[in-house]
Amino acid sequence: MTTRVIVNGALGKMGSITVTTIQQHPDFELVGALSKQDNLRAVIKDTEADIVIDLTRADVVYANSLAIIESGARPVIGSSGLEPDQISHLTALCAQQDLGGIIAPNFSIGAVLLMRFSAEAARYLPDVEIVESHHPQKYDKPSGTAKKTAEMIASVTASDIPIHSIRLPGILAKQEVIFGNTGETLCLTHNSIDRLCFMPGVVLCCQKVLHLKSLYYGLDTLL
Amino acid sequence: MTTRVIVNGALGKMGSITVTTIQQHPDFELVGALSKQDNLRAVIKDTEADIVIDLTRADVVYANSLAIIESGARPVIGSSGLEPDQISHLTALCAQQDLGGIIAPNFSIGAVLLMRFSAEAARYLPDVEIVESHHPQKYDKPSGTAKKTAEMIASVTASDIPIHSIRLPGILAKQEVIFGNTGETLCLTHNSIDRLCFMPGVVLCCQKVLHLKSLYYGLDTLL
Amino acid sequence: MTTRVIVNGALGKMGSITVTTIQQHPDFELVGALSKQDNLRAVIKDTEADIVIDLTRADVVYANSLAIIESGARPVIGSSGLEPDQISHLTALCAQQDLGGIIAPNFSIGAVLLMRFSAEAARYLPDVEIVESHHPQKYDKPSGTAKKTAEMIASVTASDIPIHSIRLPGILAKQEVIFGNTGETLCLTHNSIDRLCFMPGVVLCCQKVLHLKSLYYGLDTLL
Amino acid sequence: MTTRVIVNGALGKMGSITVTTIQQHPDFELVGALSKQDNLRAVIKDTEADIVIDLTRADVVYANSLAIIESGARPVIGSSGLEPDQISHLTALCAQQDLGGIIAPNFSIGAVLLMRFSAEAARYLPDVEIVESHHPQKYDKPSGTAKKTAEMIASVTASDIPIHSIRLPGILAKQEVIFGNTGETLCLTHNSIDRLCFMPGVVLCCQKVLHLKSLYYGLDTLL
Repeated sequence: MTTRVIVNGALGKMGSITVTTIQQHPDFELVGALSKQDNLRAVIKDTEADIVIDLTRADVVYANSLAIIESGARPVIGSSGLEPDQISHLTALCAQQDLGGIIAPNFSIGAVLLMRFSAEAARYLPDVEIVESHHPQKYDKPSGTAKKTAEMIASVTASDIPIHSIRLPGILAKQEVIFGNTGETLCLTHNSIDRLCFMPGVVLCCQKVLHLKSLYYGLDTLL
Repeated sequence: MTTRVIVNGALGKMGSITVTTIQQHPDFELVGALSKQDNLRAVIKDTEADIVIDLTRADVVYANSLAIIESGARPVIGSSGLEPDQISHLTALCAQQDLGGIIAPNFSIGAVLLMRFSAEAARYLPDVEIVESHHPQKYDKPSGTAKKTAEMIASVTASDIPIHSIRLPGILAKQEVIFGNTGETLCLTHNSIDRLCFMPGVVLCCQKVLHLKSLYYGLDTLL
Repeated sequence: MTTRVIVNGALGKMGSITVTTIQQHPDFELVGALSKQDNLRAVIKDTEADIVIDLTRADVVYANSLAIIESGARPVIGSSGLEPDQISHLTALCAQQDLGGIIAPNFSIGAVLLMRFSAEAARYLPDVEIVESHHPQKYDKPSGTAKKTAEMIASVTASDIPIHSIRLPGILAKQEVIFGNTGETLCLTHNSIDRLCFMPGVVLCCQKVLHLKSLYYGLDTLL
Repeated sequence: MTTRVIVNGALGKMGSITVTTIQQHPDFELVGALSKQDNLRAVIKDTEADIVIDLTRADVVYANSLAIIESGARPVIGSSGLEPDQISHLTALCAQQDLGGIIAPNFSIGAVLLMRFSAEAARYLPDVEIVESHHPQKYDKPSGTAKKTAEMIASVTASDIPIHSIRLPGILAKQEVIFGNTGETLCLTHNSIDRLCFMPGVVLCCQKVLHLKSLYYGLDTLL
């Protein structure tokens, strides 16, 4: 029996490739591809969706997350826009229902490994700088991934971590974390050239969320 | 009270900077800087050395290791030239005496982290190739570190791992491990520009070996 | 007055984005998007095309080139599959008619600059190796661009130039040319993440070919 | 007959390796290795030096340059600290005597090629950023080479060129110039790991200066 999946925010760049990915995957059945015109709660009820992948913008993601959880579907939230108190509240709601869920600010397995390795390397190599490079249309600077990586490093070392932001055409998303030590450097580089890089992580979340009993934060917690 | 240290193989490139490092470090007293003309067993006895750092060539490292352990000094062996059965025998000898010791084929903390991260990344990203670049005078090809990295990766994935060897002036030692995935790459790069990069690892080994009760293999086991 | 353009080989990956590019460009009018089912000579005659962009495979590109030139249209040939004697014959045919034309084995301005700079750097830095990385579906190894770059370097230095070929998902096309010298390296890297990178070069060829009186070889000759 | 060479500023890092290089080179005879205690004019006169390589600091390089030229020796000035009007005056002085001379802010052939290629690439690829990485002891930020590269690029394109400065141990001097274009990037990287990288350029200057009749600015003008 396949798992019934709704994609919310289906008209965006991430949304449209996620729709295709879910349609083509043998484990899943796409039962909804929604945009802001649709009534999310109603569609969850009508379709009896098991999972809702929410790829909407920061200003509506919290309301959508509430709708998903209150409707009893498992949320897979691809956003870095939730505030700590919002996450706490969503976590409590899931716990009340033993409902599995995942908030994944980054669905790329490579990016998540980069952050994990960076935090570990910083324990031994405290001198570090970050260079993040993106296409010129990116609206935030530095990137959310760079800020998150710097936070993770700062939690294990007292260092101040400079972040350099490059904005050039011909780049989708690239991040280098450079550790300097006497006579040597260790450089960890993640380079995304296609938004398809997020799809293995999206699929992994949808597969794992069925077996969870609470709300997890970060794809990292599933690896 | 300082720890008494002998450097064996003190005339080589690694040896000479190790001599300087030990001389300048407040925890250690250099009590011998030996070359092949010296009688290692006799000097250990005369100086009552606590530790012998052995930086000699593959063809003599096993005999030297035996001499160090049988003389009751703690070995810090910087060589990738020991065979598995030789390591087993040295391990048994140390165990009989509750003697701490370390065999470290690579003293660079950055290189050791690179190998560790590579093995972990391969669990999620099985498509991988290695590019190792060294100065043209390097006698082996591919490098020992590249072969060891490939072995560590192969132990977690069934992949065959191509190794590309570049030999150019202007490079001391560089290794890139490149993982490919749908739409993304993760590249881990270690670059040594000065043999001083090995000194933090040598010092760490000398500090930790005093508290060990058996023979450890790999700087990684101390991190 | 706009220029009338046919795209031959319009169903391939390069062909389909070229069709879109020509359609959207104010200087050009797309008068044909042909595949192997179409009669190229007939369509050129019927449409009175000024230019034919030929993006067909190596086994048919020569016949197509003859058809274009003999029909009096200006050829813009995107292939590395033509033999030297074929190029000579096509050049002679164009010269007879004072007909402009371009054979561009690579339409990427970045790749062409990389080759030019590599040949110039090799005059001063003769120790060089090439690393080319592509997606695993690429059928040739090493890449045509890598072989061409090595030939250009070899023409100014006696060196043998090793080429390393990496085949991994998450890479479209990347080439590094690494020059080693005492204490320094110079590394020239071209990275394509989208076939759109060829479109500025295609447009440039179509704009320039109108003013040429003979057959040019290489986008480089237009820069 | 060998050429008689003085190294001024012989006690610094650059000075000491330059002394060794000149001593070992068959074309040259080292006739002076001077520091600030020495009287430069007197030594030039006494030794009848043909060339003075000046590697002194920005605050004394102009006075030293005057001394060299007025004493009739050929100056090879390794400094980026001369002001435009100072360079003009030194150029006039050399011209009066038909005296060859070179001001080389950077003796590295790789770095000079990087700047040349950057200026040429910018004609076709106007979107560009610079990342320069150095050891933490470097006193200026951004580096002189990065500023010079940005100036050269700005002279052919109207762009504002961001410069990112990384300061980490384990790096001597590295510069990346990254050009972005639709779907592609071209990255030119120079990496110095040892100050010996300057010696081929120093030797080249000493060989060429004998045949010059005026003061040249930039190693680039000799390539």
